[in-house]
Amino acid sequence: MDQELTKWSFYRAIIAEFIATLLFLYITVLTVIGYKSQTDPKHSADQCGSVGILGIAWAFGGMIFVLVYCTAGISGGHINPAVTFGLFLARKVTLPRAVMYMVAQCLGAVCGCGLVKAFQKSYYNAYGGGANELAEGYSKGTGLGAEIIGTFVLVYTVFSATDPKRNARDSHVPVLAPLPIGFAVFMVHLATIPITGTGINPARSFGAAVMYGKDKAWDDQWLFWVGPMIGAAIAAFYHQYILRAGAVKGLGSFRSNA
Amino acid sequence: MDQELTKWSFYRAIIAEFIATLLFLYITVLTVIGYKSQTDPKHSADQCGSVGILGIAWAFGGMIFVLVYCTAGISGGHINPAVTFGLFLARKVTLPRAVMYMVAQCLGAVCGCGLVKAFQKSYYNAYGGGANELAEGYSKGTGLGAEIIGTFVLVYTVFSATDPKRNARDSHVPVLAPLPIGFAVFMVHLATIPITGTGINPARSFGAAVMYGKDKAWDDQWLFWVGPMIGAAIAAFYHQYILRAGAVKGLGSFRSNA
Amino acid sequence: MDQELTKWSFYRAIIAEFIATLLFLYITVLTVIGYKSQTDPKHSADQCGSVGILGIAWAFGGMIFVLVYCTAGISGGHINPAVTFGLFLARKVTLPRAVMYMVAQCLGAVCGCGLVKAFQKSYYNAYGGGANELAEGYSKGTGLGAEIIGTFVLVYTVFSATDPKRNARDSHVPVLAPLPIGFAVFMVHLATIPITGTGINPARSFGAAVMYGKDKAWDDQWLFWVGPMIGAAIAAFYHQYILRAGAVKGLGSFRSNA
Amino acid sequence: MDQELTKWSFYRAIIAEFIATLLFLYITVLTVIGYKSQTDPKHSADQCGSVGILGIAWAFGGMIFVLVYCTAGISGGHINPAVTFGLFLARKVTLPRAVMYMVAQCLGAVCGCGLVKAFQKSYYNAYGGGANELAEGYSKGTGLGAEIIGTFVLVYTVFSATDPKRNARDSHVPVLAPLPIGFAVFMVHLATIPITGTGINPARSFGAAVMYGKDKAWDDQWLFWVGPMIGAAIAAFYHQYILRAGAVKGLGSFRSNA
Repeated sequence: MDQELTKWSFYRAIIAEFIATLLFLYITVLTVIGYKSQTDPKHSADQCGSVGILGIAWAFGGMIFVLVYCTAGISGGHINPAVTFGLFLARKVTLPRAVMYMVAQCLGAVCGCGLVKAFQKSYYNAYGGGANELAEGYSKGTGLGAEIIGTFVLVYTVFSATDPKRNARDSHVPVLAPLPIGFAVFMVHLATIPITGTGINPARSFGAAVMYGKDKAWDDQWLFWVGPMIGAAIAAFYHQYILRAGAVKGLGSFRSNA
Repeated sequence: MDQELTKWSFYRAIIAEFIATLLFLYITVLTVIGYKSQTDPKHSADQCGSVGILGIAWAFGGMIFVLVYCTAGISGGHINPAVTFGLFLARKVTLPRAVMYMVAQCLGAVCGCGLVKAFQKSYYNAYGGGANELAEGYSKGTGLGAEIIGTFVLVYTVFSATDPKRNARDSHVPVLAPLPIGFAVFMVHLATIPITGTGINPARSFGAAVMYGKDKAWDDQWLFWVGPMIGAAIAAFYHQYILRAGAVKGLGSFRSNA
Repeated sequence: MDQELTKWSFYRAIIAEFIATLLFLYITVLTVIGYKSQTDPKHSADQCGSVGILGIAWAFGGMIFVLVYCTAGISGGHINPAVTFGLFLARKVTLPRAVMYMVAQCLGAVCGCGLVKAFQKSYYNAYGGGANELAEGYSKGTGLGAEIIGTFVLVYTVFSATDPKRNARDSHVPVLAPLPIGFAVFMVHLATIPITGTGINPARSFGAAVMYGKDKAWDDQWLFWVGPMIGAAIAAFYHQYILRAGAVKGLGSFRSNA
Repeated sequence: MDQELTKWSFYRAIIAEFIATLLFLYITVLTVIGYKSQTDPKHSADQCGSVGILGIAWAFGGMIFVLVYCTAGISGGHINPAVTFGLFLARKVTLPRAVMYMVAQCLGAVCGCGLVKAFQKSYYNAYGGGANELAEGYSKGTGLGAEIIGTFVLVYTVFSATDPKRNARDSHVPVLAPLPIGFAVFMVHLATIPITGTGINPARSFGAAVMYGKDKAWDDQWLFWVGPMIGAAIAAFYHQYILRAGAVKGLGSFRSNA
């Protein structure tokens, strides 16, 4: 650990996480605000004159693909405290690295949303600031469940893509890695935008809440931390104890029972 | 066979198929229900305020891409009884494995739809539960034909992607494998959603019918088992006897005729 | 040549081209007819309840990606007489192979459209049968130009993807090959659907015209043969004489002039 | 340098940049004009009968994917003066090459837009000619900021994709390279089409302005040169001095401080 802290590559990785999360929030929240301003009946007669919800889902998934591709070699390409938490539980990152990554991700998200707000202040506040909120008609349990399963899908994909044992055997795993991670984010957005606006990334929810600052965004904020962290923990458990390390022990106990 | 049943990797593969099919149905049916609730004129004035049919097609194709990528190294990544049946006919999986996979897939699909129903019960029943039904104006023969050809496209792609003879020669085959399989599912949904809602996966149709439970979904259910199984069998025949193993024999008989 | 005709792999390739073109037309024309029936104001109040023009463009591009992936190792994955013609001009396929491929592609396209017509006869005729026609307000010169440049984009991508000299140096070329070919088709459809419905594949235009059989589709048919063939020839010339083989000679003449 | 100018591969690269930029503008501007003519309430009752803004964003991103794939081995696949400028600052291309590339790109863009204008003159002028202009309600500072950050995202991705140090370690980097570059362009278009129409490519903005020729397109033209060049310079600095070459020096100074 001490050794890690004396290396430039450690600080470089933290800078890369900060910049990547900043760019992630900037592009995606700008897309959300642009969509809402263009479909507002007050300003536009053409309700189809926007990228649509499908375009928003692409923005989130596509940016994760691009940014994981760009930062994978520098920082591992987490860009999401839930991913960092899952990899920490699986002992793939150290505690100081995990803490510093999460701080950098949250600061980056705040700055990314801040840029959008600076660019179009009136629109930003009028159209919800890209903040995650539980939609009307859904219970807190449903929202929490949606965040847990959504983050499970994402972190399970991350574990599958970075599994060193699979790399040796399955030639597609290391080569495609960033693409299915981005697609996992895209898929979860298609399914849960109507429920929570889709968090599955506490930094994303935190940054938007800080800049938007309305009560509702803060009231539901716990959902977008507790849900993703539980989902990431289940994914880490599933991968490490059912599919991987656990396989060896499981096999042992199975054979001794037989 | 006996040996296979004593290995943890066999049970791990069954768990992976169960979880993958659960996640597949959860994400896709949630997307379908979200689409229908957002385009319902009773609730929304903005008929474009949804991911659209194109988004639904992406959800099915994209999830197959992600899940095949994640489970290929664990279970082969079938996530579909028709795929398992096709590979069984080509002797690429054993009978006990094929049976257990299909059971796990059907149970996973039921649980995935159950989660969607638990999350939004009133919407789930009001908007058709993601169940496959023959659309009005189409005959049973048309529906069966659409399922047969659609599954043929999918299973033909699976055979092409997993062909060990091609791997040695065509460098793109093993690397991209999960992507064209996902795209095949995406394509078939674009074409046949208006006809049957697109099954091409008996577990998907079964899970939705169990949770939705209306007469119409059960009346047409046979279509979504018979069609995909026939399509998978034709694809297995086409690949094994026309394109591959048959090539050797075919060549022999051809030469002796010449 | 004689030797080629005695090999089973030659006939297998022709079967693969026939089946691939059949599946290509079946999926894409079914998507077109489904789109038109769902956006017809007579049948539907929800004009957004279809996959949209974007979905149609994805159907054409995505199917080419899937089918090139599946057939590349069997037949080279042409699925298009213009591609076959371009590769023939560059001496990458023999004359008998080129002729047989084109016949198989045209027959496959007729059968693929025939399946769509058989499945939904009344819709098929009512909604234009997926036939290519010059849209109102465009001159024949514009239509021809659009087909020439569109096919150039496609065949140029095919040459780039199959260039043996590049393979050795650029690691992405052989691995991704089918994906940019599919994207090239997707892109050209985005741009030229409003002008000609986008041919860039004489078999596709021929098969739809045979099954639709109306005057207009036959009157413009020459456009969808002459345009793609010219575009493919220019692409072959550009690749062979400007970018590749010509480079050596060009370099020689350049140096001797200097 | 002198040696470079005597090689055919140098001139071939310039031709490839010219043709690629021509095709890029031809396909994308044709898509924009087609979209606008099909959503014009004067001509069409079906406002959804177009590829949508999402389709336009795909056209720009998808063409960059295809063209980078095709020209990477010939010219490096810049197709954008801002990319050339960023790589020049990082000393990856020489000054004469950079200048010649930019000239070829601008000429190609003019010719590409010229083809669209020739094909549909009345539509071209009526629907804005695909020119980049600052949308109403946005300040020049916002437009400039949007262009700077958008180009930073693109050029940062280009540097990540072409980094020789990463290639040795991260197996996905060289294989996927053209895909995330195309996706970066797609993402930036989703976010900034409502603000500036999205330039991030001075040749694209210049070519459209020359052919459209209206005052507004020229008045804002400086924005689409200054913004992208600043964004490319920041990306070059970030990659060379924070993530790469600087890492060595930074590590040195860090250790001596510690």
